Amino acid sequence: MPEFTELFNHIAKSESKFIDRLSEAVAIPSVSGDPSRRSEVFRMGKWLASQLTELGAKDVELKPLGKQHDGDNLELPPIVLARVGTDPSKKTVLIYGHYDVQPASIEDGWNTEPFELTRKGEVLFGRGSTDDKGPVMGWLNVLEAHRDLGLEIPVNIVFCFEGMEESGSEGLDDLIKREASAYFRGVDCACISDNYWLGTKQPVLTYGLRGVSYYEVAVEGPAADLHSGVFGGVVYEPLIDLTHVLSKLVTPQGEILIPGLNDLVAPLTPGENELYEKIHFSLEELEENVGSKTVIQDNVKEALQHRWRYPSLSLHGVEGAFSEKGAKTVIPSKVIGKFSIRTVPDIEPRKLDELVFDHVKKSFAGLNSKNKLTVGLVHDGDYWVSDPHNWSFAAAAKATKEVWGVDPDYTREGGSIPITLSFQENLNTTVVLLPMGRGDDGAHSTNEKLDVPNYIEGTKTLAAYLHYLSESKE
Amino acid sequence: MPEFTELFNHIAKSESKFIDRLSEAVAIPSVSGDPSRRSEVFRMGKWLASQLTELGAKDVELKPLGKQHDGDNLELPPIVLARVGTDPSKKTVLIYGHYDVQPASIEDGWNTEPFELTRKGEVLFGRGSTDDKGPVMGWLNVLEAHRDLGLEIPVNIVFCFEGMEESGSEGLDDLIKREASAYFRGVDCACISDNYWLGTKQPVLTYGLRGVSYYEVAVEGPAADLHSGVFGGVVYEPLIDLTHVLSKLVTPQGEILIPGLNDLVAPLTPGENELYEKIHFSLEELEENVGSKTVIQDNVKEALQHRWRYPSLSLHGVEGAFSEKGAKTVIPSKVIGKFSIRTVPDIEPRKLDELVFDHVKKSFAGLNSKNKLTVGLVHDGDYWVSDPHNWSFAAAAKATKEVWGVDPDYTREGGSIPITLSFQENLNTTVVLLPMGRGDDGAHSTNEKLDVPNYIEGTKTLAAYLHYLSESKE
Repeated sequence: MPEFTELFNHIAKSESKFIDRLSEAVAIPSVSGDPSRRSEVFRMGKWLASQLTELGAKDVELKPLGKQHDGDNLELPPIVLARVGTDPSKKTVLIYGHYDVQPASIEDGWNTEPFELTRKGEVLFGRGSTDDKGPVMGWLNVLEAHRDLGLEIPVNIVFCFEGMEESGSEGLDDLIKREASAYFRGVDCACISDNYWLGTKQPVLTYGLRGVSYYEVAVEGPAADLHSGVFGGVVYEPLIDLTHVLSKLVTPQGEILIPGLNDLVAPLTPGENELYEKIHFSLEELEENVGSKTVIQDNVKEALQHRWRYPSLSLHGVEGAFSEKGAKTVIPSKVIGKFSIRTVPDIEPRKLDELVFDHVKKSFAGLNSKNKLTVGLVHDGDYWVSDPHNWSFAAAAKATKEVWGVDPDYTREGGSIPITLSFQENLNTTVVLLPMGRGDDGAHSTNEKLDVPNYIEGTKTLAAYLHYLSESKE
Repeated sequence: MPEFTELFNHIAKSESKFIDRLSEAVAIPSVSGDPSRRSEVFRMGKWLASQLTELGAKDVELKPLGKQHDGDNLELPPIVLARVGTDPSKKTVLIYGHYDVQPASIEDGWNTEPFELTRKGEVLFGRGSTDDKGPVMGWLNVLEAHRDLGLEIPVNIVFCFEGMEESGSEGLDDLIKREASAYFRGVDCACISDNYWLGTKQPVLTYGLRGVSYYEVAVEGPAADLHSGVFGGVVYEPLIDLTHVLSKLVTPQGEILIPGLNDLVAPLTPGENELYEKIHFSLEELEENVGSKTVIQDNVKEALQHRWRYPSLSLHGVEGAFSEKGAKTVIPSKVIGKFSIRTVPDIEPRKLDELVFDHVKKSFAGLNSKNKLTVGLVHDGDYWVSDPHNWSFAAAAKATKEVWGVDPDYTREGGSIPITLSFQENLNTTVVLLPMGRGDDGAHSTNEKLDVPNYIEGTKTLAAYLHYLSESKE
């Protein structure tokens, strides 16, 4: 069993230095979704590369990804690759994180300047503090602590940090495929620290994600928008048709009305059901996250099952209809409804498309409208579920227990991180999601934060994970 | 019977002069909806007042209306008032028109500069050519022709030209009430030339308008927008609830599903039904207006009845949901559905509100959602129906027959001109809608136009209307 006392003490003593590192990172407004800030994303990539070099990483590369699709000649930010160790007798872990962030400005309702890390008590506020600069700095802190103490890092590390995660990870999937037998050759497992605890107290390891299939259904009729005084009651209105079609997709209680869909869902086993009993989370915490008492289920177990292991269908909105404040008496000529389905085992995306298209077309045919309907898939990403007790998860569990003194909860997430599956499939490896931040960090929201304990104990956890990994058996 | 030969010949000979007048008017971009062009609306009002003065009108006034509501300290354009004649033995007709226009710019797809009247063959293109500068110039032309020929105008005229018609006629209703027993005292009838023929060949007189009641129904739940991955299937989604509620308002075939509403509609009498047989209009023309074969009814008679004398319910859109291009996986926290009902005799607006609110609330209650619904009226305007055979209509019919050689069709409109009812009720007078332009003029559209024959023969028709009015019996 590794001896962590010296390492952990040193990490604890380095708190202010580590917070300074995070401050430097947060101060670079690397917003990938804002073309005017693209140069800042590049600056952040370079800064990260120079940190890695300084901390002893080798083969540090800024891999260019070419032009952004539909990006008006905008260059994609590079993937930062780096290595620590090439000892063939050691295991090799791939560490993924991202150095770009969501947009933020003080006018959105931030209490502090978003690109200035601000400590209040034991909390660090700033854009990217938890998503995902905190965890990325955590890995750099691990390197620094080992260097300072002259400790050997017990595994080989391959770093892969991207700069487009908040904008669809454009180019990453292709890079993984390209580098699978090159830079990424010999990778034994991957670790992603880019999600969150379920609540605010209990550390977790995450072994599943839902997939998502996003659809658009368009209804068109008149050649141009019409005046509802002149044509109301006389023409088939595309928005009326669309509203009827959308209302036949799902009930207010979340029951999906697409025939055949529920037959594709893997049944809940008694063993699986039991797992949910152990989760440290309450209906009250869930309602607090929602901000109102509008949760469908009346107990937290079922609510978590519906978040993690059952499909859901959400309506997002309508393009082409009147959407502003005020009153406009328009009959929109073409409207596009947007909805998505979160997928779970064993829903096969192509089979799902077939069921969706068939149901939507049948619903519309039943309306006997003279308008024209089309339905199509916009994008999809498959679900991911791992064995939460494999050797890599076991190492992460031991690290968590060592640092936090408790066994982690094993969670899944309702959302999707498509890159997880890409690493697993292209590198033929296992992936563990090892989160640093808490469930209330507000990753994409105003006043995003990371608690100091999560940053420092989180850094310890990442370090301990590497050590337990080195002695675990594949 | 009046002798029109000299007058009509003179009007015909004045064509180029009259077109020059319309060119001058169109060249002033008096867009009331664009605050940056408010000074041009004022300039247009002054230009109109000086024309009236030059043509011998008296008591010409630019009545200020104060500041615009929510207008950021913007002054409302004045109402231009003027008189021709004060002979107590003559009838007095109030002439209404408006001197402001809709926005326009060449980038919208105009083939010619919108604020430069451009003649191509027998068509005059330009913003305001038909709505409503053409008809307003028509009245000035009538004054000029009488002055040139030394002919007496056989009625007293009170002109009332506004500059905010395209922006909700703010201030006009109050002015009518204020001036009812002052400037407008002694008015016997009113004539509005601000609508259009039904088609392109047959002149019409218009004796009815539908009213409109515009509603908003809001559903709210979560404190903020949520991520559909994390909360899909776990919370009651406001947009799902709203979609169900909206789908219960109306069928694709236009059948309104609000209980009790149809009982309020005056039944179609056999005599009324016959009126529709005589209308010169076809299903093909209607489909051409729509730009597609998506008309609900399979014959033009029923289609016109649904446009003019039955209520209709249109869905306009949703505020607060995702409405842009692309895919966003949001669960909107608060959404506001917008719909309106076109009203007809004998729907009483307050009774309608009651039925709407009751039905919407019952629909929502039936969903058993934990979200919160509110429904409210945004604005309303009552329907208007006149006797198409009263003395003022009779005069307009004779004028039409005299100029165009045919009896006019008697039409109603599906849309609303709330000011019609305001003149009728506040001045206790009858109103006739005497249109100049054709159904395909594209009033609020790109490439708005007025045909030269409609401008010149229309001017003759307005002149003849005054003469027949003077000899008609109230």
